[in-house]
Amino acid sequence: MNKLPDIAINFPEWYQEVIFQAKLADHAPVRGCIVIRPYGTAIWENIKKILDDRIKATGHENAIFPLFIPQSFLSKEAEHVEGFAPELAVVTHAGGKELEEPLVVRPTSETMIHHMFAQWIRSWRDLPLKINQWANVVRWEKRPRAFLRTTEFFWQEGHTAHATKEEALEETLLMLEEYVNLAHNYLAIPVIKGRKTKHEQFPGAEATYTFEAFLIDGKALQMGTSHLLSQSFAHAFDMKFQDKDGSVAYPYLTSWGATTRLVGAVIASHGDDRGLILPPKIAPIQVVIIPIIKKDTKDQVLEYVTKMEQDFKKYGISVKVDADDTQSPGAKFYEWELKGVPLRFEVGARDIASGTVIAVSRLNKEKMTVFVENIVNWTHSKLESIQQELFIRAQKRYAAMWHKADKFEDFKDALEENNGIYQVGWCQDHACEVRLKEIAGSIRCMLESKELKNCFNCDKASLADVIVGRAY
Amino acid sequence: MNKLPDIAINFPEWYQEVIFQAKLADHAPVRGCIVIRPYGTAIWENIKKILDDRIKATGHENAIFPLFIPQSFLSKEAEHVEGFAPELAVVTHAGGKELEEPLVVRPTSETMIHHMFAQWIRSWRDLPLKINQWANVVRWEKRPRAFLRTTEFFWQEGHTAHATKEEALEETLLMLEEYVNLAHNYLAIPVIKGRKTKHEQFPGAEATYTFEAFLIDGKALQMGTSHLLSQSFAHAFDMKFQDKDGSVAYPYLTSWGATTRLVGAVIASHGDDRGLILPPKIAPIQVVIIPIIKKDTKDQVLEYVTKMEQDFKKYGISVKVDADDTQSPGAKFYEWELKGVPLRFEVGARDIASGTVIAVSRLNKEKMTVFVENIVNWTHSKLESIQQELFIRAQKRYAAMWHKADKFEDFKDALEENNGIYQVGWCQDHACEVRLKEIAGSIRCMLESKELKNCFNCDKASLADVIVGRAY
Repeated sequence: MNKLPDIAINFPEWYQEVIFQAKLADHAPVRGCIVIRPYGTAIWENIKKILDDRIKATGHENAIFPLFIPQSFLSKEAEHVEGFAPELAVVTHAGGKELEEPLVVRPTSETMIHHMFAQWIRSWRDLPLKINQWANVVRWEKRPRAFLRTTEFFWQEGHTAHATKEEALEETLLMLEEYVNLAHNYLAIPVIKGRKTKHEQFPGAEATYTFEAFLIDGKALQMGTSHLLSQSFAHAFDMKFQDKDGSVAYPYLTSWGATTRLVGAVIASHGDDRGLILPPKIAPIQVVIIPIIKKDTKDQVLEYVTKMEQDFKKYGISVKVDADDTQSPGAKFYEWELKGVPLRFEVGARDIASGTVIAVSRLNKEKMTVFVENIVNWTHSKLESIQQELFIRAQKRYAAMWHKADKFEDFKDALEENNGIYQVGWCQDHACEVRLKEIAGSIRCMLESKELKNCFNCDKASLADVIVGRAY
Repeated sequence: MNKLPDIAINFPEWYQEVIFQAKLADHAPVRGCIVIRPYGTAIWENIKKILDDRIKATGHENAIFPLFIPQSFLSKEAEHVEGFAPELAVVTHAGGKELEEPLVVRPTSETMIHHMFAQWIRSWRDLPLKINQWANVVRWEKRPRAFLRTTEFFWQEGHTAHATKEEALEETLLMLEEYVNLAHNYLAIPVIKGRKTKHEQFPGAEATYTFEAFLIDGKALQMGTSHLLSQSFAHAFDMKFQDKDGSVAYPYLTSWGATTRLVGAVIASHGDDRGLILPPKIAPIQVVIIPIIKKDTKDQVLEYVTKMEQDFKKYGISVKVDADDTQSPGAKFYEWELKGVPLRFEVGARDIASGTVIAVSRLNKEKMTVFVENIVNWTHSKLESIQQELFIRAQKRYAAMWHKADKFEDFKDALEENNGIYQVGWCQDHACEVRLKEIAGSIRCMLESKELKNCFNCDKASLADVIVGRAY
């Protein structure tokens, strides 16, 4: 294995290399796609499980809709088809024949799901209808990047229908909060939440809410979105219901999604020059045990670590014993640090004699001597504190790169050179937003606060603060 | 809702109707596809969880490979492309342009996964390599039928590589056993396992093992398969490894898969004229509680059933309280029987006074009076016994339709008229196998036994018994 590129100097190369060296993913022989290897898949499965539990706990049910969407469906909502047309993959032949109507490989499922909703919703009794789907989707990517932007990606897409706009907005914001909770309390990634500008919102939506991360290099990443679709799709798909008073009305819709990009966000939020650092709550391996083996004590040490392994498993700690005798302990330290395992134990005959083992935290290389008697409790609490430390460390990083600025001229050079988080005022004119393109910047989201008085670009008053950054 | 068709007289219509009435699935606006509604999705998720746990427990790791396969990959293994070519869906345009090389929507992933294996396998140390993928696949179906045969379906596909043929065969048979375990102990479906004939095996395989169910109407259903691929794909994809002695060798491969067809098998194995009967171990709702509500005792009864609900949940029993006050108890009994919930409780004020509730088993309408004090334990044990009774009932059905026959003439009329399981001798000539087409029959699998002396069709000696049936 080669040394990783310097994370502070060449972050994009570090990101690419750590993914391949840690065996999270590999290049695929299809443009813009990756193969997600077992270690990367295990991280995604852990994230999925957490999010799926919350989706169900908030009253949604999973369903499965077709991969293919008739081309005519996409055209029913004008903004929607305009937004997605350039990114579509199209099946024109099947079963040895040319199809009468081409089928689009879903880039998202609003049109398919709303077609079905129109059949399932008859009366106010059928509302709210709260559905979620775990699926693969395809958007032809011009600049793919592993996990962050791939032609095929994996996600959940929630789709709900409500009798009133208030209820739909409440749902939109509730699921945004669930995403923020996932990011903060499981991925250890601080996020900034807010509304997207009109220009950046989902094609067909009335409002799009986003949660944005800022990565190690100070670039912004949209981690997921929650849309208030309102009635445009309901009109397009003739989705109507009879209300309590007998009148016929169109329901208000929402949709919200988070993708395998979350895995990329974790990689790009916590690593260092030695490799990944995985938050314990989503780490496929929370604890690795390295037996320090010498010929005459081999059996004793292996028996001891096997007992430790069983104890950890019994109490819900995911553990790996690396007893490979073709590798030196040093080589193993290197490998499991690269793979970001939060906690390492080193166990030799001398440790057994003293009833202690050496523990090393991935976060800061801190070495600790731990009594074996109490090791399960100690480990639970240490993993919890690593989880918290990771989040706090990321918060400090945000604080250091977060600036308030009055005018474009005041921040444009600094942002272009070093990235970072810029809180500025904005008049909500698209013409001012466009100015940011000069430095490959954009408004990541609109905040509820109003600390800055004037628009960063013109003389008009600011309507609300916005976060500006340069995005992946 | 309409009355279900008579299951004994018109099974195919009953099957179709029960799926739509119980809201397991709905028609999709794409040919040959279905929408799997929340209730059907929940059954599939339960099956997935059980199988995924076993796949991991037997040392396999999940990974994710691309949906699209370059057309040229499929051509690398001659039998493979010949077998799948007529069923392929092909993406010819993407990102607004015609593709230089069309992309096939995977009908199965051997070619993609073996392409990657060829890069990951270098030495005997990399073996065995044991990978599984949960994915959607597409095969253009001429005669689609909900769950049993759909253009897009959902499955797991295991793919493994081994240093020796013995080890690969062991893996093939191990996973077959895991499938049989799933069918018997969770789906309550007795299956017949055996090897497929040369003519029926997977395109490119050396041997295909199958597990076959016989449904309520006596028709056969291939529930899943496990293939010893041997070295043909390894040669096609130039997959080589350096063995312990320094020589270079091709690994032996296996693949094995089970699909959403398993949901169809459950529906078609256990139902009756009132609807579905779901095995408790995979039922999304194991217990439904119907409060018998009268005006003056409403609060008391609702409080009581809420307490019951909490107790059930606490001890891992999935429960639904149906307190909808727009429906009569009778209408609710009808609905939850249709949906196959294994156990129903009826709770009214009089029951509360006596400290008992009424329980009704979905299997046989048996009514029982149960002491509330002990209800969790009683329910656990009752669900277990319903699970077992379902399996035994299906076994009895098999016994009643299982016949041994010497000659084609002896069984052809009976099989054509009534379906059923026919155990006969076979010389292993394809010419004799073809004879069964006259009655739309086929050899479902070859057994290890040899009870019949001669081939059912010619005068030659039988090499082994085979199971003959008419398949879906």
